[in-house]
Amino acid sequence: MEHLHVSAAQRVIFESVTALGAETVKLEQSLGRVLAEDIRANRDLPPYDVSAMDGFAIRSADVVNAPATLEIIEDIKAGDMPTKTVAAGQCARIMTGAPMPLGADAVIRVEDTREVSATSVEIGKSVKPCNDVRPRGENMFSGDVVLTVGTEITPGVIGVLATVKAAQMNVFRRPRVAILSTGNELEGMDDPVDPNKIPNSNSYALMAQVQALGIEPVLLGIARDDPVELEQYLKRGLEYDVLLVSGGTSVGVHDYVRPTIEKLGVQMKFWRVAIRPGHPLAFGSTSKTAVFGLPGNPVSSMVCVEEFVVPALRRMMGNPRLYRRTVMARLAHPIKMRPGRTEFIRVQLTRDAAGYIASSTGTQSSGVLLSMAKADGLLVVPSDSNGLVAGEQVTVQLLDGTVFQDEIGFRE
Amino acid sequence: MEHLHVSAAQRVIFESVTALGAETVKLEQSLGRVLAEDIRANRDLPPYDVSAMDGFAIRSADVVNAPATLEIIEDIKAGDMPTKTVAAGQCARIMTGAPMPLGADAVIRVEDTREVSATSVEIGKSVKPCNDVRPRGENMFSGDVVLTVGTEITPGVIGVLATVKAAQMNVFRRPRVAILSTGNELEGMDDPVDPNKIPNSNSYALMAQVQALGIEPVLLGIARDDPVELEQYLKRGLEYDVLLVSGGTSVGVHDYVRPTIEKLGVQMKFWRVAIRPGHPLAFGSTSKTAVFGLPGNPVSSMVCVEEFVVPALRRMMGNPRLYRRTVMARLAHPIKMRPGRTEFIRVQLTRDAAGYIASSTGTQSSGVLLSMAKADGLLVVPSDSNGLVAGEQVTVQLLDGTVFQDEIGFRE
Repeated sequence: MEHLHVSAAQRVIFESVTALGAETVKLEQSLGRVLAEDIRANRDLPPYDVSAMDGFAIRSADVVNAPATLEIIEDIKAGDMPTKTVAAGQCARIMTGAPMPLGADAVIRVEDTREVSATSVEIGKSVKPCNDVRPRGENMFSGDVVLTVGTEITPGVIGVLATVKAAQMNVFRRPRVAILSTGNELEGMDDPVDPNKIPNSNSYALMAQVQALGIEPVLLGIARDDPVELEQYLKRGLEYDVLLVSGGTSVGVHDYVRPTIEKLGVQMKFWRVAIRPGHPLAFGSTSKTAVFGLPGNPVSSMVCVEEFVVPALRRMMGNPRLYRRTVMARLAHPIKMRPGRTEFIRVQLTRDAAGYIASSTGTQSSGVLLSMAKADGLLVVPSDSNGLVAGEQVTVQLLDGTVFQDEIGFRE
Repeated sequence: MEHLHVSAAQRVIFESVTALGAETVKLEQSLGRVLAEDIRANRDLPPYDVSAMDGFAIRSADVVNAPATLEIIEDIKAGDMPTKTVAAGQCARIMTGAPMPLGADAVIRVEDTREVSATSVEIGKSVKPCNDVRPRGENMFSGDVVLTVGTEITPGVIGVLATVKAAQMNVFRRPRVAILSTGNELEGMDDPVDPNKIPNSNSYALMAQVQALGIEPVLLGIARDDPVELEQYLKRGLEYDVLLVSGGTSVGVHDYVRPTIEKLGVQMKFWRVAIRPGHPLAFGSTSKTAVFGLPGNPVSSMVCVEEFVVPALRRMMGNPRLYRRTVMARLAHPIKMRPGRTEFIRVQLTRDAAGYIASSTGTQSSGVLLSMAKADGLLVVPSDSNGLVAGEQVTVQLLDGTVFQDEIGFRE
């Protein structure tokens, strides 16, 4: 049976999942969503030439031989309209954002002036025409498409949406996601501690990976190794857009999941990917549900979610950015490797003047979830690698929680 | 009046804001919060030596000269306890996570075996003792501190919390944040379009920057340029942990904000920072409220939030990671610069084999919010720079929405 490469498996998944339908959300609830409509400007902005600074609106010709003393004829605040025309030797006091008066062609910042009296000011320097003036329509002209379908709604985008008074907008719907854990060995969160059982960490780790995308998943609970019970749980899961099943998809003989899933009409697309950790991963779909069969090992399961489920969910939400951001780093120590699968090593990132340094978080056993908790990223080792040497340049995918760092990181 | 450097201004802010008190949250609501208590393991995990794979538990001495045919004496599922001891020439079928039977010291994966009959299996290769066995306590021993105060709760951390059955935990409280815009020129979201006014984008852009940290701020609305109205609004804002006031802190003569703020007992710490865009920025505090006076220009205001408000809010939430992640990039084109202030240029990031390439999003006018909407990051130009040349290595802070990218970014 063929083991698909990571990107080949992603392509198979992307054939089954596309952007979901649109829904309307309020601006206040739109952060992180993706526009399902183009957004147009509803006015020229600025509506006329305005001052970019607090200062004085002047005629640049008057200050060619600065310093020059000018008569203050008016006081223009933002929100006011000028009522007078600035003639030679005159100026108007003007605030940032206020409309330029007729006659004036430039602004002198208040820092570069000295008030001589209530009605006159000394201008300390000469400036070119248009200095510190923002021309009409500099931001946008009415009718311009300012944001297009597929734009992720970031704080900057929300600022633009507010600028064009888009109090609500069409965005792609979020997928409804169900999470099911399977296995007699699992101990539920509210069960008493039983040393013969394994706490059900997977449901919660997967929940959090999905929550990090702004989706609130439904935890279906734990299905025991019983075909009837399992079928009931899986049926419930197939009412969602995405069903994540952890455990139970191995090649072991106690595996009821795959036959039950297929009996329920899920067409399996693959069940082998050349990835480590991450084995075994399966993917299938019905006409309405994408089904991921995830490994029971917690790290393997989380890595599969990062590499396959997160891109699928983002695609369903209409986002063109499907992959975790990658950075280059220097490897702090050698890593032994046997070729055959793309390997994801949990690493911490530190920095020096030359850039990032990646070092392993410790044991890479797929059972040790603490290594994932400590990781800043996943170092990706190509499948043809026989090992990495210290100092080698490597690629690291950043994980949640690592979009911030503990030092300022730039020279000011 | 001295212009503080960016990091000096941050230090002043950090003297006024510290981690807030703790509160208890449920595991399901904990993502992105920061632990205010150490978390200990409540059991040994695994509780005994377990199989890391689906396969057969064997005595490694029996397969030194593989292939070897062994008798299958038992079938051990995860969640079962073994009932028999594996003697020479024997083995037990075993599932991932199931306890190792007495006598056996290694696991052979099912892929490396061939079942000869219902009661015997041919082992295809020899392995060392402990092969594919996860020893007792590999993850954690009961009583170990597994997570410490100050740990940001990421999906991996949630997996660990679920592993130790922490259904709820103490985290640092989120700051309560109020946002106030000021100025007669502002047009509210529900007001009719008036070409003489400026839409109030700042309240919403700031709201989104705060929301991106998991905090739901309160929008107080727009205070007009009237000392009495302004005082009422500011009083309301001083009931919160953090008050963001946009506009109205300039040196212009129509500025009521600063005197009113000081009258209300806010001790101003600085009102000049050597940053561009971002002028003018002011900071002060009462015994309970940190007050940021932000520029009225939308880009300036957003940059100030990124560089000063976000670190302050994260510090209040107990997070040691205060600063936006930075990456190195090659500059695509020269940038003119006058020295004196640390400058933040909105850039888009692309990639080639050598790494990231940064190029300006276009006009850097602080009035043009679209440049912020398009930006992947902020290129930081040191204050002593006279300009940057094409090809130069530069530092870029990643912004919200850029933690994902549109290509896989690694060789598989």
